Amino acid sequence: MRPPSRSVNRAEDESLTWQGAALLWPQLPQVNMHELIRRKRDRGRLTAAEIETLVRAYTRGDVPDYQMAAWLMAVYIRGMNMDETSALTMAMMNSGDVFDLSALPGPKIDKHSTGGVGDKVSLVLAPLVASCGVKVPMVSGRSLGHTGGTLDKLESIPGFRTDLKYEEFRGNLESVGVAMMGQTQRMCPADRKMYALRDVTATVDSIPLIAASIMSKKLAEGIDGLVLDVKTGSGAFMSRMPRARRLARMMIDIGGKLDKKVVALVTSMWQPLGEAVGNSVEVVESIEALKGKWRDDLKEVTLALGAEMLLLAGRATDQGQARRLLLRALTEGKALERFRRMVEAQGGDARVIDDYDRLPTAAHRESVRAESAGYVRSIDALQVGLLGVEMGIGRATLDAKIDHAAGFLFKRKVGDKVARGDVVALALASDQAKAKAAGRALGKCIALSPVAPRPGEMVVARLNNRH
Amino acid sequence: MRPPSRSVNRAEDESLTWQGAALLWPQLPQVNMHELIRRKRDRGRLTAAEIETLVRAYTRGDVPDYQMAAWLMAVYIRGMNMDETSALTMAMMNSGDVFDLSALPGPKIDKHSTGGVGDKVSLVLAPLVASCGVKVPMVSGRSLGHTGGTLDKLESIPGFRTDLKYEEFRGNLESVGVAMMGQTQRMCPADRKMYALRDVTATVDSIPLIAASIMSKKLAEGIDGLVLDVKTGSGAFMSRMPRARRLARMMIDIGGKLDKKVVALVTSMWQPLGEAVGNSVEVVESIEALKGKWRDDLKEVTLALGAEMLLLAGRATDQGQARRLLLRALTEGKALERFRRMVEAQGGDARVIDDYDRLPTAAHRESVRAESAGYVRSIDALQVGLLGVEMGIGRATLDAKIDHAAGFLFKRKVGDKVARGDVVALALASDQAKAKAAGRALGKCIALSPVAPRPGEMVVARLNNRH
Repeated sequence: MRPPSRSVNRAEDESLTWQGAALLWPQLPQVNMHELIRRKRDRGRLTAAEIETLVRAYTRGDVPDYQMAAWLMAVYIRGMNMDETSALTMAMMNSGDVFDLSALPGPKIDKHSTGGVGDKVSLVLAPLVASCGVKVPMVSGRSLGHTGGTLDKLESIPGFRTDLKYEEFRGNLESVGVAMMGQTQRMCPADRKMYALRDVTATVDSIPLIAASIMSKKLAEGIDGLVLDVKTGSGAFMSRMPRARRLARMMIDIGGKLDKKVVALVTSMWQPLGEAVGNSVEVVESIEALKGKWRDDLKEVTLALGAEMLLLAGRATDQGQARRLLLRALTEGKALERFRRMVEAQGGDARVIDDYDRLPTAAHRESVRAESAGYVRSIDALQVGLLGVEMGIGRATLDAKIDHAAGFLFKRKVGDKVARGDVVALALASDQAKAKAAGRALGKCIALSPVAPRPGEMVVARLNNRH
Repeated sequence: MRPPSRSVNRAEDESLTWQGAALLWPQLPQVNMHELIRRKRDRGRLTAAEIETLVRAYTRGDVPDYQMAAWLMAVYIRGMNMDETSALTMAMMNSGDVFDLSALPGPKIDKHSTGGVGDKVSLVLAPLVASCGVKVPMVSGRSLGHTGGTLDKLESIPGFRTDLKYEEFRGNLESVGVAMMGQTQRMCPADRKMYALRDVTATVDSIPLIAASIMSKKLAEGIDGLVLDVKTGSGAFMSRMPRARRLARMMIDIGGKLDKKVVALVTSMWQPLGEAVGNSVEVVESIEALKGKWRDDLKEVTLALGAEMLLLAGRATDQGQARRLLLRALTEGKALERFRRMVEAQGGDARVIDDYDRLPTAAHRESVRAESAGYVRSIDALQVGLLGVEMGIGRATLDAKIDHAAGFLFKRKVGDKVARGDVVALALASDQAKAKAAGRALGKCIALSPVAPRPGEMVVARLNNRH
């Protein structure tokens, strides 16, 4: 029953031979999968060489899914220490293309969010930071479960392409200073294969596996530094704060092991971020923000992350200076200009910036009104996200179709005062029945209170290498 | 990524449709494998219906190996309670043929050993108990790792067939009172498929999984009662006593749940049992035992197990009476006669009983002599077993070839006095070099001592339903 060792020449597997992956992986000893499963099962540790061999063999197809599944479950339950997690990150990163941006002048800094509801930060932040002279090479993801996806949002701009080739990505980065694309088939194939297996074997929700998955993809971008936005709250994958902190700490330590500067902010995801949840509606909100009109919560998170990026890049020496630079770039219209150039460079119709009607627009909208006077006590981000999946904002399965026009608008957020009959939120949909149903469901996600709730902080923790 | 549900008509899968397995399993709800893995991962419990559905779906191929592997690892680490283990036993038993021996008159009692070195008990015990009027339907296994296999031993008798069909097995049981065969392809296909997966995913050594695997096969024999010989000591799979007891307890409780009388003896497997380790050499020792000449350790274990079988069958009311019945059957030659009839009924050359030269015989033998006077302190059963695998007595892989003539003879056992130069043991092999090498290695498995070791009990514990 043990899988036969294979000596097939795998030169046809371009993901492993292109750009020297084969060179990065010299001939490694054959993997004794049974022993590696047994050791992890019994709380043992794997060496970096063993993990590298294992990941390589699995990616090549020399380790069957069933053995990998048993190993992943043992890892899920027994955990991995920092050395193991770093080794896994490295091995997954080296399983495919690793961008080399070292010839581009200046610091290359990216931001990564663990995912939230209404989280359009990247759309504002990337051009904003780029307009301050920092290169932002951003490889983003799509909607997953109840959380939105940057690529889906960008693609609501007519013509906008996210499937860039490396050369185009690098070229845009050089000329525009910012480029946003999806992961290519040749980036981290090991992570993609392992993630697909984790998804069907209930082994996704493991901190070391999540940390290694995120960091392998981010480090493959060829960045010098990374700012992490680790969400906590009902709309986050790590809803509880201690787990969010552990994940943040692990990703920072992986960065440290690989000589990358990493800072993490743990930010609130109890209610949707900003006003809009959807695709085109979030693009509109992002453009408004780049024009200087934004809700405080979105502004606070974006500026906090942006300041960290400028500090990592050495463009500012303290938070105050960094924020002033960001706000100036915004006020002077440089951030919006950078967004326009990025849209044009990636084939998008930049006229949407001045004419929102060129974006997909929902024909029907349903208002959610306050049934009594008082304050908004809570807007359940998870429930809003799940409702969004039903409306086609996000996707439940990888092949589900996205409705770019559908969405929600929150006219009042937590802590805001409302009079009876005020419009608190709107549901936007392609037909009236859908809009009505969504409006009813949306109302159930929002709770009012006669007294003002205690205001919460948006940035609840900051972690970096030194702590 | 979730596996698509299949609605393929599987009438071609005879193991599931033959003899009403499809009737035993009415239409069950579709299995949500992700949820079952997650629940077990998080220390939750599965219902009997969920386990039945899972086993059925896996056996049919509707659950992929990788999901089953993740579930098995979660079970390995988190364990299963009695209800879950009984449900798994039932589901695996019902996955294939379940013998119906209810029309045969008299009690049907079997014995099962968890495996040891030199464990030829079944060859003596089955005809002995049958000669006392108890039907013994014995489905046995082959050598696995360092432990021997009853089928391999029996097949050293020229012509002896162990691949009986159900009808022949049942017929022999009726006429001879005893039949010994191998598991058919149609018995417990779920267990066979799961065991093969466990073997390559480091999930074999789990007490509930072992208990369910053994009991599903034994209960499929259609028995009324079962005596378990749970080995403990270096040559056993459960080398440590607390684990052996836990396994015994679990199997007894499974039996109780399914209204079967089960008794377990925990017996010593620190040194090989009896004098011979091998295939034809163990057949010779067994025939000698049936002729009344046997070493005390083999006699003690065989009579203890036999007495329990007679008590379960209601053929005796106390241990003393049961032992007297067994010894009388032996003395009167009835046990040997029963063995002869069984050999004949299964196509074997019964002349071997009176002429051991008709059995495969090793051409070369190498003596291991005592280097000093004293006592035998220990004979390491595990090391002897592993040496046996190298010599072809047992098998390391399922397709390895067995050498029926090779073996070891222990002329002195633990506690026996030896003079310098005495032959303590012999290694038997097909060529001189092999015999010499085996003799050298065998010497290292045996330790002498100037003082007599404290004698150990053969039967170290007895467990039954009532305790």
